[in-house]
Amino acid sequence: MNTDDATMRGIAREARRAQRGLAGATAATRTQVLEHVAQLLSDREAAILEQNAADCEQARREGLAGPLLSRLALSSGKLATLRDGLRTLASGEDPVGRPITRTELDEGLELTKVLSPIGVLLVVFESRPDAVIQIGGLAIRSGNAVLLKGGREAGRSNAALVGCLRDALAYGGMGADAVVGIEGRTAVKALLELDEDIDLVIPRGSGELVRSIQASTKIPVLGHAEGICMLYVDRAADPAMAARVAVDGKCDYPAACNATETLLVHRDFLPQLPVVGNALIDAGVEVRADEVSRAWMPGAVEAGPTDGTVEYGDRILAVRTVSSLDEAIAYIHEHGSAHTDAIVTSDEAVAERFLNEVDSASVFHNASTRFADGYRYGLGAEVGISTSRIHARGPVGVEGLMTTRWLLRGRGQGAGEYGDGKRAFRHRRLALP
Amino acid sequence: MNTDDATMRGIAREARRAQRGLAGATAATRTQVLEHVAQLLSDREAAILEQNAADCEQARREGLAGPLLSRLALSSGKLATLRDGLRTLASGEDPVGRPITRTELDEGLELTKVLSPIGVLLVVFESRPDAVIQIGGLAIRSGNAVLLKGGREAGRSNAALVGCLRDALAYGGMGADAVVGIEGRTAVKALLELDEDIDLVIPRGSGELVRSIQASTKIPVLGHAEGICMLYVDRAADPAMAARVAVDGKCDYPAACNATETLLVHRDFLPQLPVVGNALIDAGVEVRADEVSRAWMPGAVEAGPTDGTVEYGDRILAVRTVSSLDEAIAYIHEHGSAHTDAIVTSDEAVAERFLNEVDSASVFHNASTRFADGYRYGLGAEVGISTSRIHARGPVGVEGLMTTRWLLRGRGQGAGEYGDGKRAFRHRRLALP
Repeated sequence: MNTDDATMRGIAREARRAQRGLAGATAATRTQVLEHVAQLLSDREAAILEQNAADCEQARREGLAGPLLSRLALSSGKLATLRDGLRTLASGEDPVGRPITRTELDEGLELTKVLSPIGVLLVVFESRPDAVIQIGGLAIRSGNAVLLKGGREAGRSNAALVGCLRDALAYGGMGADAVVGIEGRTAVKALLELDEDIDLVIPRGSGELVRSIQASTKIPVLGHAEGICMLYVDRAADPAMAARVAVDGKCDYPAACNATETLLVHRDFLPQLPVVGNALIDAGVEVRADEVSRAWMPGAVEAGPTDGTVEYGDRILAVRTVSSLDEAIAYIHEHGSAHTDAIVTSDEAVAERFLNEVDSASVFHNASTRFADGYRYGLGAEVGISTSRIHARGPVGVEGLMTTRWLLRGRGQGAGEYGDGKRAFRHRRLALP
Repeated sequence: MNTDDATMRGIAREARRAQRGLAGATAATRTQVLEHVAQLLSDREAAILEQNAADCEQARREGLAGPLLSRLALSSGKLATLRDGLRTLASGEDPVGRPITRTELDEGLELTKVLSPIGVLLVVFESRPDAVIQIGGLAIRSGNAVLLKGGREAGRSNAALVGCLRDALAYGGMGADAVVGIEGRTAVKALLELDEDIDLVIPRGSGELVRSIQASTKIPVLGHAEGICMLYVDRAADPAMAARVAVDGKCDYPAACNATETLLVHRDFLPQLPVVGNALIDAGVEVRADEVSRAWMPGAVEAGPTDGTVEYGDRILAVRTVSSLDEAIAYIHEHGSAHTDAIVTSDEAVAERFLNEVDSASVFHNASTRFADGYRYGLGAEVGISTSRIHARGPVGVEGLMTTRWLLRGRGQGAGEYGDGKRAFRHRRLALP
């Protein structure tokens, strides 16, 4: 183990120590810390914007592309939005220790299952320095420690923002090491080895970033590498509705992971397909259609061998004809990414079969795939969207950062007092306080 | 990839296909399959016992130890118990598709989060052929597929029991490949590579088995490698209660993972320690005490350097003196396994700090560590006890074999209809049906 690995292990263990203090503190303390982060963002606004200007200046010199530059740039307005977000978290419910179930095992023997922080999180994100405050705020509210690795180009901005989080923790009497800024790929590589010291990795960025992290760690990863979302237009679909849902799914934000990438069309719907095809083409979408469906959409281009199985992240949509609901479901299972898939149909029985059988994190009837999102689902802040089948699945809110603990309160009972011919358990479910 | 790897991948993928059929079927179908497994266990009793007798005969020739032999042996009585378990599962609630939350996002746009099977499980267990039916039954009830790898010595028995499960699936019109018996270490090694085709590994057996599986797969592992459970006797502990909880924790079943291994004693309690020490020694426990506590327990032996940090699985208990609650908690975090830890005290404030701050799956006040168990917690069948901080933690029942899906039912809405200056979401929580 080289020095760098040892340093990283030390950082992760100090984070664990600070996290236990943060989780053991009162909700009021975590609230106070969050309010103080907002205060520091205000007090230090000039210094933060100065550091950010230096990052932007260097990025411009190094030729960073326009959209990335605008994501990198902070402003008074963006800082005000971040303060609003922190105040929303500060006034929101504290999840730490929240009871989920209560059971009377026997008289004077009561079991409570409570929410408890996962522990030490490693979050790897790209470009936007805003993420430091958003993620750091979520971690503080949920009693987790977080190691934050942002993009190199935002180094000075991230450091200034991490400083606000750490100073606010110290101000609240908490260990500052519950939030740590990490720099450099070597450091991340070393951290990804520490499956005993880090409990969850959350990559926020490109599919490439997610895949490379998934491939190089044994720590559980919350996220999704791909969003190959599909829309199945059933033979009993209303053509105008199908057009509306397809255009929204593809065009509302084509680069999003929940954008529709493949349209599956029942062959009996083909005579009405022009309504959908024209709407898409009018919206500026390049429609790549199989031979059968292209006969009904003269404006479409010929699909290549990979069309229908990939994430475009652009105004491109594949169209394929299927002969049955079963074929559509099988195609989604074979070529989709189990992120979000939708059906348009006015046949309730077909819709229920689709909802029941499609094995994806989100499955929709008569709604655009773009609804798959923590904010739209009403989860508040979104940690990410998970296609994992373990822990949290689909859009993940603060509860995805929580695990549980079982608390048992007794009067000195031993397990040997129960069993055949002895005392019996009551197992009576109690109301939550 | 050699042939064996390809074969295993094929088996896992066929299991996935059969699993989707099983999950998409009605609860009544899964119930019918479970009832038919019980019927087949009855119809085939003679043949099953014959195969089992052959296993036992060979095991005796090969010199298998007595306790292992008795775990290997089936009987009419054991088969009757298995049938009872299946009927309990058959008459119990079916978790597949059970709604957990319902939210009205807007008029005519309703989101439901439902329980959904994890998918394909790999369960590796030792010796007891009973486990085939117990695990297979749980998998069928929960709509999961399961690949079952039992001990070599139980090969014939396991094959006969797996046959009952597969034939019952086929009888119910389901794919038999939702349950597959796996033989040989090479096969398991190949399966542990398939992190895209297998969703969860559940090792049921020794810490060595669990550790070796955790070290050799990227698939999430549900279980625990160690159960180093600790009991802290506070200075405000009632001596008789401390003695009772310590003796039960150590002696009720010393080989269990939830047996107490280390006793931490507040130094102010030392004058009353003889009550606890004598009770333990009278119960036949070898007490390995540090120097300070040994002065109060003449019957104890001197603790070595590793005592207090290991799982004995035997009638041996380490005793260490601490100066404060904080020192006790720090010791548990440093040397425990985050499985189950307990405090005996009549000081409620100290108890609540212990319950709040000890970061273990189960934390008890005035109760024996032996209560950490799915049956005692009222979870019904126990899948295992997890010390992972992701997914399920502590004793895990059927719900630990479930993930969730989000179902959205709309009227053709697009996400672009919502936002600033457009429609607003309602996010109204609805009652469950």
